[in-house]
Amino acid sequence: MEQRNLTLLTDLYELTMMQGYFKEKDANETVIFDMFYRTNPHGNGFAICAGLEQVIEYINDLHFSQEDIEYLKALGIFEEDFLEYLRGFQFTGDIYAIPEGTVIFPREPIVKVIAPIMQAQLIETALLNIINHQSLIATKTERIVYAAKGDGVMEFGLRRAQGPDAGVYGARAAMIAGCVGTSNVLCGKLFDIPVKGTHAHSWIMSFPDELSAFRTYAKLYPTACILLVDTYDTLNSGIPNAIQVFKEMKEAGIPLTFYGIRLDSGDLAYLSKKAKKMLDEAGFSDAVISASNDLDENLINSLKMQGAAINSWGVGTNLITAKDCPSFGGVYKLAAVKDKGTGRFVPKIKLSENAEKITNPGNKTIWRIYDKATGKIIADLICLVGEAFSPANSLLLFDPIETWKKTMLAPDSYTLRELLIPVFLNGKCVYDSPSVMEIRAYCARELDTLWDESKRLINPHTVHVDLSNELWHMKNKLLESYHRK
Amino acid sequence: MEQRNLTLLTDLYELTMMQGYFKEKDANETVIFDMFYRTNPHGNGFAICAGLEQVIEYINDLHFSQEDIEYLKALGIFEEDFLEYLRGFQFTGDIYAIPEGTVIFPREPIVKVIAPIMQAQLIETALLNIINHQSLIATKTERIVYAAKGDGVMEFGLRRAQGPDAGVYGARAAMIAGCVGTSNVLCGKLFDIPVKGTHAHSWIMSFPDELSAFRTYAKLYPTACILLVDTYDTLNSGIPNAIQVFKEMKEAGIPLTFYGIRLDSGDLAYLSKKAKKMLDEAGFSDAVISASNDLDENLINSLKMQGAAINSWGVGTNLITAKDCPSFGGVYKLAAVKDKGTGRFVPKIKLSENAEKITNPGNKTIWRIYDKATGKIIADLICLVGEAFSPANSLLLFDPIETWKKTMLAPDSYTLRELLIPVFLNGKCVYDSPSVMEIRAYCARELDTLWDESKRLINPHTVHVDLSNELWHMKNKLLESYHRK
Repeated sequence: MEQRNLTLLTDLYELTMMQGYFKEKDANETVIFDMFYRTNPHGNGFAICAGLEQVIEYINDLHFSQEDIEYLKALGIFEEDFLEYLRGFQFTGDIYAIPEGTVIFPREPIVKVIAPIMQAQLIETALLNIINHQSLIATKTERIVYAAKGDGVMEFGLRRAQGPDAGVYGARAAMIAGCVGTSNVLCGKLFDIPVKGTHAHSWIMSFPDELSAFRTYAKLYPTACILLVDTYDTLNSGIPNAIQVFKEMKEAGIPLTFYGIRLDSGDLAYLSKKAKKMLDEAGFSDAVISASNDLDENLINSLKMQGAAINSWGVGTNLITAKDCPSFGGVYKLAAVKDKGTGRFVPKIKLSENAEKITNPGNKTIWRIYDKATGKIIADLICLVGEAFSPANSLLLFDPIETWKKTMLAPDSYTLRELLIPVFLNGKCVYDSPSVMEIRAYCARELDTLWDESKRLINPHTVHVDLSNELWHMKNKLLESYHRK
Repeated sequence: MEQRNLTLLTDLYELTMMQGYFKEKDANETVIFDMFYRTNPHGNGFAICAGLEQVIEYINDLHFSQEDIEYLKALGIFEEDFLEYLRGFQFTGDIYAIPEGTVIFPREPIVKVIAPIMQAQLIETALLNIINHQSLIATKTERIVYAAKGDGVMEFGLRRAQGPDAGVYGARAAMIAGCVGTSNVLCGKLFDIPVKGTHAHSWIMSFPDELSAFRTYAKLYPTACILLVDTYDTLNSGIPNAIQVFKEMKEAGIPLTFYGIRLDSGDLAYLSKKAKKMLDEAGFSDAVISASNDLDENLINSLKMQGAAINSWGVGTNLITAKDCPSFGGVYKLAAVKDKGTGRFVPKIKLSENAEKITNPGNKTIWRIYDKATGKIIADLICLVGEAFSPANSLLLFDPIETWKKTMLAPDSYTLRELLIPVFLNGKCVYDSPSVMEIRAYCARELDTLWDESKRLINPHTVHVDLSNELWHMKNKLLESYHRK
């Protein structure tokens, strides 16, 4: 993101609304917007947030260049005083966010923006674009890595990604959620993460025969020698030729450190079992058997259940596009407007016929409640900033819709952690993004705070996201007052 | 793409193979790779190709910076002489392509690369990434525009796109395929295309009441006054308030040129009919009734069939992610290797159990055959470069799998057009990309060359893609020779 000016990466209506605020309202009115999502993608029990580092770069770089201003002027809908304001535009607000790699749940503010309304409005589109994309891919990847049960999963999707950014930042998100490497060299360079890959069918086809193609590859890359065996005939040509080359390496005294085969077509369960038998019989029982070809979490799960002898997975299209649900659905909603007189935030609510679509008003934060004995998440509690909770006291949780469903937590049985942390204060970034590999390690620890029942691929157990008593009452009062109108 | 160095936007295996060619083979061996796809996405009867302009920018800018070289060196798998070669790398080959906005069919080479093998291999990943993405979105958009039956369709998907590029280049592809505008300001600036948009719920919510929010908006933007009516209550508040504002504009003598309402939730069929009635009764029968909210071609088609009174459509997530099939599946396969001795191309074939997956070998081109009387496409003919056809002669077409299915075209009953045109010759770009709006006009003419039966959304008529007699025989000889081995 750093090489480009993305200030105009916004919907036109953000700019027309900004001019409206500039012309007709107090443009410095401070507001609060929450970014949150409503449903976990892929039927998952949770999501993993990602993309904050790129949002920070975007915010830090926000500026309208002379060229941008001239373009906007040429549209004929913006007036000179507003364009003059844009010339001096910079972000001066506060942003709170949940750190990348955190397990998140529906309706929780992932990002909270407190800023003059014009600024908060401008950044809506890019913020949603970036966080929606990376959180989607991180969440999809977690499912795939979960299905692989400890085997390495490699990200191979660049050629099918929706453009260069989708490839690069998708691979970044995939690493956060547990992939062991990516084929994407640019992503490897930008984020210092492992890059992987061997050869394609074209390598084999450009040689007179498969055996000489394998031999040449093994000579060049003896320490990472994974041979693609399905160009002509997997069982009758590919695997026998690969075994022949491994034997020659052994005889030549070349240490076989990391070697094996890749299956890229056919019945992967059958072929991998056959391959395992052939490799074992030839004395190569530690050979890697990797597989690719339109894999996803369901196919990997099915192959595992069939006893496929695969121990390394290359996943492309289905991961990098999150194929069965290719959008995350994060939204950005007004939650409060600061009253100039009192200096207090007046909560705002967006109504809907659908109870789930009604927004949570006010200046909020989230406390994650962990079981003290196991370290697992009990529930999340969305509350108003300033409310105090202490694990020394008991805590009553209740479902915000079916309010008769209650749980009482005993004193000292739980611990608390606030999820939203300051990222920008008064326009200045106060947060250092960890490296991708650090976020990856943190994400693995995050996944340990979930019970396995919440991680299963189908019908996972729902982790409760409750509202504090104070927030619940404030929300209901607002709803009542609208209905009285 | 111009602002970034995308040379490393490639899979690692392209580079390991390149080093292999460099070290162990004649690195200057000239090869032919074809990019093609196997299945139309979304069950469509065809696809629309897009992305060539970005491929040209990518090829023109190909160079390994000092930083790139240092990164590759640090990986520890590349040797100094190969890195030295990369330092001086430039593309010197030929590229032929089908122009953007053209109607295309499965198995046709969309892009043909003739270049030294190392160069042809490097560009595989980025070329696929760019063309796959834009062709996907163009094809999806065509379906949506087709369903809208002449109503304007606006692209509104940036916030749900898979990263910034997916938003920007997706909107570009959407314009090519017939959208009337996009909300994406950066895309508008980069490609000089119409940008559209009005206001969000947050605009309404930031005012004390809906009516004053509408009034203020109308005052600011009287010539493009589309009011969002569903923030509180569409029928009881939103539409009456919008009508009130239109009346006030009329009374104040403000010409109502382009005005109306936008529905963004609820039952769009019911609400639009009610809205139309209310607007008609108030004397505003020329008001635009636009709709958004998770639309796609099926929903638009259904709303049309229900008689919804909507005449303008804003489509976001489903268009910009091609939600029901978010990848295009284009592949890049070796088709021939030049024999140094004879200077002739030796055809190469990739076998597969599945007849559809067997590649077409050799140095090929495509002739499109049109019915002379109607101008509609009869079939496409993939043949070898150098084969001559003339509409003055009769032409026998036959299905390449079910070869008994034959059609004889009479002399002077058809016309011919070669689809692949030169884009790079000897590394030099010889093609001027038209503007996006020019490509959009060309694409509309392209769609006129299809019978309506090929454009319907479900079970469209298949346009035949045949092989020339010469290519068919050469392919079958190659297949036979592999089976004899």
